[in-house]
Amino acid sequence: VAEPGVAVTLRYVAKHAGVSRQTVSNVLNAPDRVDPVTRAKVEAAIMALGYQPNRTARNLATRQAGLIGYCLARRPGHNPFMDTFLHALSTAVEVAGRHVLLFTAPEDLDDTRVYADLVAQRAVDAFVLSDTVDNDPRHTWLADHEIAFASFGRTWPEQGEQPGSWVDVDGAGSCAELVAGLHALGHSRIAFIGWRAHTGAVLDRQRGWRSECERLGLPHGDELAVHADSDCLDCGASAAAGLLDSGHAPTAFVVASDLLAVGVVREVKRRGLRLGHEIAVTGFDDSVLATSVDGGLTTVRQPIEEVAGTLVELLATPWEARGVLLRGELVSRGSAPLQV
Amino acid sequence: VAEPGVAVTLRYVAKHAGVSRQTVSNVLNAPDRVDPVTRAKVEAAIMALGYQPNRTARNLATRQAGLIGYCLARRPGHNPFMDTFLHALSTAVEVAGRHVLLFTAPEDLDDTRVYADLVAQRAVDAFVLSDTVDNDPRHTWLADHEIAFASFGRTWPEQGEQPGSWVDVDGAGSCAELVAGLHALGHSRIAFIGWRAHTGAVLDRQRGWRSECERLGLPHGDELAVHADSDCLDCGASAAAGLLDSGHAPTAFVVASDLLAVGVVREVKRRGLRLGHEIAVTGFDDSVLATSVDGGLTTVRQPIEEVAGTLVELLATPWEARGVLLRGELVSRGSAPLQV
Repeated sequence: VAEPGVAVTLRYVAKHAGVSRQTVSNVLNAPDRVDPVTRAKVEAAIMALGYQPNRTARNLATRQAGLIGYCLARRPGHNPFMDTFLHALSTAVEVAGRHVLLFTAPEDLDDTRVYADLVAQRAVDAFVLSDTVDNDPRHTWLADHEIAFASFGRTWPEQGEQPGSWVDVDGAGSCAELVAGLHALGHSRIAFIGWRAHTGAVLDRQRGWRSECERLGLPHGDELAVHADSDCLDCGASAAAGLLDSGHAPTAFVVASDLLAVGVVREVKRRGLRLGHEIAVTGFDDSVLATSVDGGLTTVRQPIEEVAGTLVELLATPWEARGVLLRGELVSRGSAPLQV
Repeated sequence: VAEPGVAVTLRYVAKHAGVSRQTVSNVLNAPDRVDPVTRAKVEAAIMALGYQPNRTARNLATRQAGLIGYCLARRPGHNPFMDTFLHALSTAVEVAGRHVLLFTAPEDLDDTRVYADLVAQRAVDAFVLSDTVDNDPRHTWLADHEIAFASFGRTWPEQGEQPGSWVDVDGAGSCAELVAGLHALGHSRIAFIGWRAHTGAVLDRQRGWRSECERLGLPHGDELAVHADSDCLDCGASAAAGLLDSGHAPTAFVVASDLLAVGVVREVKRRGLRLGHEIAVTGFDDSVLATSVDGGLTTVRQPIEEVAGTLVELLATPWEARGVLLRGELVSRGSAPLQV
């Protein structure tokens, strides 16, 4: 039996049976997918602990508020394709006969408290998450409470599996493609500029840069990888200045966002270097900023409509934790005229 | 009595009684605000026509879905402060104990059909509109059907009053302030660049430019006002090129959007003119683009939080059509170093 005072959650059952959350979920929702030995072990744990699947979550699934909750990021103005994403998400949700309910998480409130309130009010059937952070507490909380959700973006857990279903764009793959394209243009010293070292998405892009440089026999040491304080224009400019002033000045920059990249372009032009000729710069996002650069910024477009469609598909089988990695699309412009 | 086959709407009663829609609404909802003679006239028309206030609308007001409908624009990626607006709107609506329900209007559907469906499903209590166009059919339809709504942006009706309540930012006032500031910097030939002549908001900004130029004795003829094909970067660049190549080249540009203004800046720099010294450029919106210009773009910030709060206030008295004009905030940067 469970220790006194310990809520018997799906995670608790999983730990007790020595299996993953997903396996427990499968035993409950799709037992034919689980091999008989494992199934017996999990069923024994469920019996022993007196585990009862979350009733609220089950009610939600049958009651059908017809609404999918989506929390707006705390830092508005920061996400360059927020309105594109919301439009795509809303359209995909409508195709499934539902609508998106928007909400915010005030600064002074625990995020999960806001999600718990909406569940208690039965205001939504499920959640879509984005603007994920590393070890995002929302994902763990929702998975533990068996509330249906799907995430745009991974949470890069330090250990163990990512809770719940997710779709993401393969940042490592896109950055590797950018490096290969820059190398084909004749560049052999290619730097990486990201921000805040503890952001999984940035580190993922950096991994792609590093592995492709390594594969091509190009330098890929820490002296060529800079993490700006934050994702801002001035930060990009000063990161570029530092690299250009160093003893190992690169001729190309793979930059983890359009905003940082526009800052790099500014510094490159300030020095009178010819963008797209002597120096190449690439961004990430294909935001409106990418066309504000004279000649345009080569960048990576995220397949937002596909992301939104996948999120709605994942919500159709909320008991099944799946991950879908989509390919970003290289958009070649004057700042790095790649052959794509 | 009404003609056969004609639905007796509030507008029909208003026309019959020779008063405004708002007056009929006041007779129904706040009769003490209407002078006795007008009231008697309206009551006679209501009797004669057999008018019955819209039951669905009344039910909506009492039933309280707890949701405010908001339609996302058809052209995502175009509105530079959409996510800021949605965050502010969602926060303001939550303070009033409700949430925002997002929806889209597919290209092949009549907009009002989508609104009608949501009303029929009783999915929302009221609507917030933005991305208004001139003579927007949504406003007329909602007002005629007595469905509560509030609009961010006017619809510039060719004749008569704007239907329903609205809040807007005083574009004319802000552009007049920009002209005054540029004049104080020594500029005496100030051009205006907008887009599509039939957009009320652009014409409003142009009116502010023209009236202040006139007041200061500066040239303000049509040769100094250019309307680009659309609101895009290249359009701004070619509009600026046309003006700079003309026999009456300006030294300053008041531009109706940041996007067009960044295009103007590009053309100015291409010609080797010193931005902020020989030539001044101002934008409108204070989007992320405004900081992408070296030295920054002087622009107008829309008070989005105040807009959102006002929309929610207006929805509290949906039977009362009110208009609120808010002041934009001048943000001075290197492209036109105004004393503000």
